[in-house]
Amino acid sequence: MVSENFYDVTQYPLGNPYEDIGSVINSIIADIKSRQAVRDQNDGGKPGAVIYIPPGDYRLVTQVVIDLSYLKIAGSGHGFTSSSIRFNTPADELAQWREVWPGGSRIRVDMSPDAADGEAGGAAFYVKRTGNPRISSVEFADFCIDGLHFMDDGSGQDDAENTYRNGKTGIYVGSANDSFRITGMGLIYLEHGVTVHDADALAIDNNFIAECGNCIELKGMGQASRIANNFVGAGYRGHSVYAENYGGILVSSNNVFPRGASSVYFSGVARSSITGNRFHSFYPGMLVLAANCCENLVSSNHFLRDREPWAPMQKYDNGLDDLFGLLHIDGSNNSVIANHISETIDTQYIKPLAAKPVIINVVSGSGNYIANNHIVATTEMSQINDAPNSACFSTQVGALLSTDNLKALEVTAVLVQRGSVRNTVLDSGGAEQVEMDRTVNAFRGTPVPGQ
Amino acid sequence: MVSENFYDVTQYPLGNPYEDIGSVINSIIADIKSRQAVRDQNDGGKPGAVIYIPPGDYRLVTQVVIDLSYLKIAGSGHGFTSSSIRFNTPADELAQWREVWPGGSRIRVDMSPDAADGEAGGAAFYVKRTGNPRISSVEFADFCIDGLHFMDDGSGQDDAENTYRNGKTGIYVGSANDSFRITGMGLIYLEHGVTVHDADALAIDNNFIAECGNCIELKGMGQASRIANNFVGAGYRGHSVYAENYGGILVSSNNVFPRGASSVYFSGVARSSITGNRFHSFYPGMLVLAANCCENLVSSNHFLRDREPWAPMQKYDNGLDDLFGLLHIDGSNNSVIANHISETIDTQYIKPLAAKPVIINVVSGSGNYIANNHIVATTEMSQINDAPNSACFSTQVGALLSTDNLKALEVTAVLVQRGSVRNTVLDSGGAEQVEMDRTVNAFRGTPVPGQ
Amino acid sequence: MVSENFYDVTQYPLGNPYEDIGSVINSIIADIKSRQAVRDQNDGGKPGAVIYIPPGDYRLVTQVVIDLSYLKIAGSGHGFTSSSIRFNTPADELAQWREVWPGGSRIRVDMSPDAADGEAGGAAFYVKRTGNPRISSVEFADFCIDGLHFMDDGSGQDDAENTYRNGKTGIYVGSANDSFRITGMGLIYLEHGVTVHDADALAIDNNFIAECGNCIELKGMGQASRIANNFVGAGYRGHSVYAENYGGILVSSNNVFPRGASSVYFSGVARSSITGNRFHSFYPGMLVLAANCCENLVSSNHFLRDREPWAPMQKYDNGLDDLFGLLHIDGSNNSVIANHISETIDTQYIKPLAAKPVIINVVSGSGNYIANNHIVATTEMSQINDAPNSACFSTQVGALLSTDNLKALEVTAVLVQRGSVRNTVLDSGGAEQVEMDRTVNAFRGTPVPGQ
Repeated sequence: MVSENFYDVTQYPLGNPYEDIGSVINSIIADIKSRQAVRDQNDGGKPGAVIYIPPGDYRLVTQVVIDLSYLKIAGSGHGFTSSSIRFNTPADELAQWREVWPGGSRIRVDMSPDAADGEAGGAAFYVKRTGNPRISSVEFADFCIDGLHFMDDGSGQDDAENTYRNGKTGIYVGSANDSFRITGMGLIYLEHGVTVHDADALAIDNNFIAECGNCIELKGMGQASRIANNFVGAGYRGHSVYAENYGGILVSSNNVFPRGASSVYFSGVARSSITGNRFHSFYPGMLVLAANCCENLVSSNHFLRDREPWAPMQKYDNGLDDLFGLLHIDGSNNSVIANHISETIDTQYIKPLAAKPVIINVVSGSGNYIANNHIVATTEMSQINDAPNSACFSTQVGALLSTDNLKALEVTAVLVQRGSVRNTVLDSGGAEQVEMDRTVNAFRGTPVPGQ
Repeated sequence: MVSENFYDVTQYPLGNPYEDIGSVINSIIADIKSRQAVRDQNDGGKPGAVIYIPPGDYRLVTQVVIDLSYLKIAGSGHGFTSSSIRFNTPADELAQWREVWPGGSRIRVDMSPDAADGEAGGAAFYVKRTGNPRISSVEFADFCIDGLHFMDDGSGQDDAENTYRNGKTGIYVGSANDSFRITGMGLIYLEHGVTVHDADALAIDNNFIAECGNCIELKGMGQASRIANNFVGAGYRGHSVYAENYGGILVSSNNVFPRGASSVYFSGVARSSITGNRFHSFYPGMLVLAANCCENLVSSNHFLRDREPWAPMQKYDNGLDDLFGLLHIDGSNNSVIANHISETIDTQYIKPLAAKPVIINVVSGSGNYIANNHIVATTEMSQINDAPNSACFSTQVGALLSTDNLKALEVTAVLVQRGSVRNTVLDSGGAEQVEMDRTVNAFRGTPVPGQ
Repeated sequence: MVSENFYDVTQYPLGNPYEDIGSVINSIIADIKSRQAVRDQNDGGKPGAVIYIPPGDYRLVTQVVIDLSYLKIAGSGHGFTSSSIRFNTPADELAQWREVWPGGSRIRVDMSPDAADGEAGGAAFYVKRTGNPRISSVEFADFCIDGLHFMDDGSGQDDAENTYRNGKTGIYVGSANDSFRITGMGLIYLEHGVTVHDADALAIDNNFIAECGNCIELKGMGQASRIANNFVGAGYRGHSVYAENYGGILVSSNNVFPRGASSVYFSGVARSSITGNRFHSFYPGMLVLAANCCENLVSSNHFLRDREPWAPMQKYDNGLDDLFGLLHIDGSNNSVIANHISETIDTQYIKPLAAKPVIINVVSGSGNYIANNHIVATTEMSQINDAPNSACFSTQVGALLSTDNLKALEVTAVLVQRGSVRNTVLDSGGAEQVEMDRTVNAFRGTPVPGQ
């Protein structure tokens, strides 16, 4: 026997978790609430509970609705495996596969999205509570949410499983919240992985959120949150990490792989940090600071942009051309310091043709400080791009990338658009690689040999 | 049935964990020790045990005393919610609140501190062992320690719950130790959150330690430890992170919010790193390197100092004026590289009045290297400070912080006091913003437009 | 009763985990496979299972062989304590020790390595599967693997326990894999801690892997993986972190202590990051980028090299002399930005005698960008090196390291060997400290006072 506040979905007397784990969890939540109905007194509180999901394959037909604080839902296995590779594998090969679906503590999201409720209507887990205080300390840990299939979006393309659209969301938090944690999860084949509105001190750490339309989205407004140590990779339509109107976010030590339209997209975000991440993308616009993003720090990140190597996905992109900038900045007083930026692409794939790609594009704003960034631009090494999602998956990668094999690609390292003033660009490119009005912006070029 | 080395506090036959979990845990520890009384032989050791605290609301009357290695105490919920906001909410509003206390696996510290034993006497968990080897691998994970109330400190102020004083400590480690872990915890309303003496290879990761007088304190001497990925925020009297006489510490990727007297205070610390953190403070002295701190690295951090926006706390501060420095450095051969520093404050709040605030203040020492820091100083945006602990919690934050709305604030970007020599200041402010004796220190100003 | 996919090794009816946990786990794996024999259908998968190892002392005689996806093996205690200190403690002192072995959920590796199968043959946990898809989402968490003893290696030295050789490996992954996690583990006294071939999106986080011949080795080829927040420290023969032919790795926020031959050794690695780590070493060659490592980022790290302070280990080193470079770079287009590097050693210990130690040595390659590194070189402070593994474990450390007590050591801050071109060295040392051909490489010296 275990504590009354520890629930195992496979042991709960009501419902069948293999047929509908959503219904079982909702029953458990009702039970917790009924037992905690009396008001807190004498410093005694309403502690919440933990709902344990052992490894297993659970169907979810009914949306889970969470409206109490201190609920933890935990499994024992993030269960990620690539569904994208599998759906693009011929059936005859697939017949030999040892397993074909994600696993671990796996929830198969099989409900019909309620279109009337928008994105929330398609959420497997929907958190929302009115009144005070803000709902607090809800935790999701170490299980898998699998959206199963993408679907034909009517665009006429026949590869429905590659659309990144199915109206499903893994976790949707719809009201102001405090001190939530989403850790160790595996999210896959969802149009939206995690969407959180109005968060304070939210932690999204150590998750594997990939092959989703969008991976992590912070919406509304919020502050003082952390997105760290995740593996993330959205579809070509969406963002790997998105935030709007937040302050004080820390995006650190994430390994963000393709093919998100952006690795990070900030809209109206202020005083936040993007540090120590590894970003890999197939398109321009890897990092976008839009709508007056101010006083943010982008430092110690590794950016790599190369071309989509995988045949099934080569027909898609994010629609941006190479003049948009790998880093695109609309805002003021931001800092872009000590980053490494690699762009490698064959000239035949540059859009518009014969254009000189822009690496850092300051489209508006003033007071930005761009210093000590090392930009390496070369034509593509097609030999090393031979695997899905691959940057350089080859025992020969070192030799292939040695400068003996590389041909330099001419780029605009930094472009500061007309009208932007008081920006500072230091040691991030030679004089001929940086375009800006130097009468109103400050510049020091990276020194060149012999001077 | 489960293993004999797995204990659930709610299932243990002796004592009642809801009345006094301290007594129950001490009984369990005695049981573990009695079962492990024989000396290790034939490579077989004394493995310790895990004590599980399911979600629940447990009173602690008796101090837990830990004197054996390999003990893990783990819950299923950090349970943080703001008690500070609640205690400053009118009673009539509070009557409508859905819950009023922290939760999760929550321990209510309700013992009478033993004043004779100082800080250790007020500790809920007291770790101490004499002899060899150092006590090793004690772990605390995923539960909540709630100090419940602060108390009138005799200062004549009537808001007892805002004093950050109650003589209580969450976890106090009093003797030399090795390879401890404190992870995923929620600590709140304790005068001291975690205090560890003489640590080697200590990990304090992924915790939520806030609304405590002091949050994390490393005392005595120690080395090779890590404080990473925490949410931390001390009271106005104490430090969010404090260390003395340690070497080789790594403070990284923490989100440290107000209102600590310091975000990080190092005394006599050497060869340690403060990298990739986000710091927010309401006072000068955010980062203090005191008492000959040497060869430390401070890089890729985001610092924000603005004014306390929340009425109940506006009467408090840490007593320092704006000449003290946001970063205050006493020591040699430290590196301060690639940080973003924002200060925003209305001139009417500057102390002493009409002073020019100092951002980086090197008060003594030589050989410090201060390079590529971007300092943004502006007058306050009062519109954006409308919520407790808020930096910029508003959907309008981007627009408000755009330079159209900002008025520059004149500051001393770097001050190197007389007597300090061989310091180097590069690209961290213009010539007129950096004060130092350039005949004995090296300087290169951030370039300005048109030059 | 708990779920059928949750196994506790102490409750499983077959075998005795205290006598041979390997045999018990293999039986459990066979049971999981037999229950999952039917092919996945209707979106339903093969979820795997979790095998729980409660705290306890388990002997492993039979190698565990893992060939199914979604298996999680988890304990409740990493159990690290120093065996190295113990084996070098006199027997009469040891008789007083409170415990002498590691603990937690501890597996004592006591099998006879199968020499015919090389490193894999000596692995406690051997993961290997042929066919498609790659084996996915195997997880190891929160337990201890103890290799028990090192052994005489025939070198004639009589301290067998200090050889770092015993033919044992903790975890060996021998085939291509996806989304594995190794977290919270304690590994000790193994010739190889964790060896993983051909990984994609591997996470090695929050482990304690020390006193092993080698700690973390990524072999074959692979990509997009993360090694973060670990405590690591290999023996003098091996590497703390090693990778070959990988792309897109993120090595971040690790605290790597002595005495590895290298803290990080990359061979043919490309487009990877080493950021925000703290490295401490007793020998040159702390960081080696070998065999054409290209486009990697090394930033915001703290490097410390001093002399081995502990008598039993002073006779060993890694065989490299001080001209090798603390950072040794063979490759192109790498970035080394914003690091702090301390070297402190008495001139009598420099090899070859009277040589000028090299800090950053670019032995070949072009296009490397080395900027804003702060190098502090001094003669040794013998007073502060008084404990095993100690950098500066003393309450006087601050004062001892103050410049009043330091004597500068003359070094070559950066050496770019003949034949290397188009490298850029900025603000990382004075003109007299940087040796390179400035007609083909770019240079700007750190400014000096009075200029």
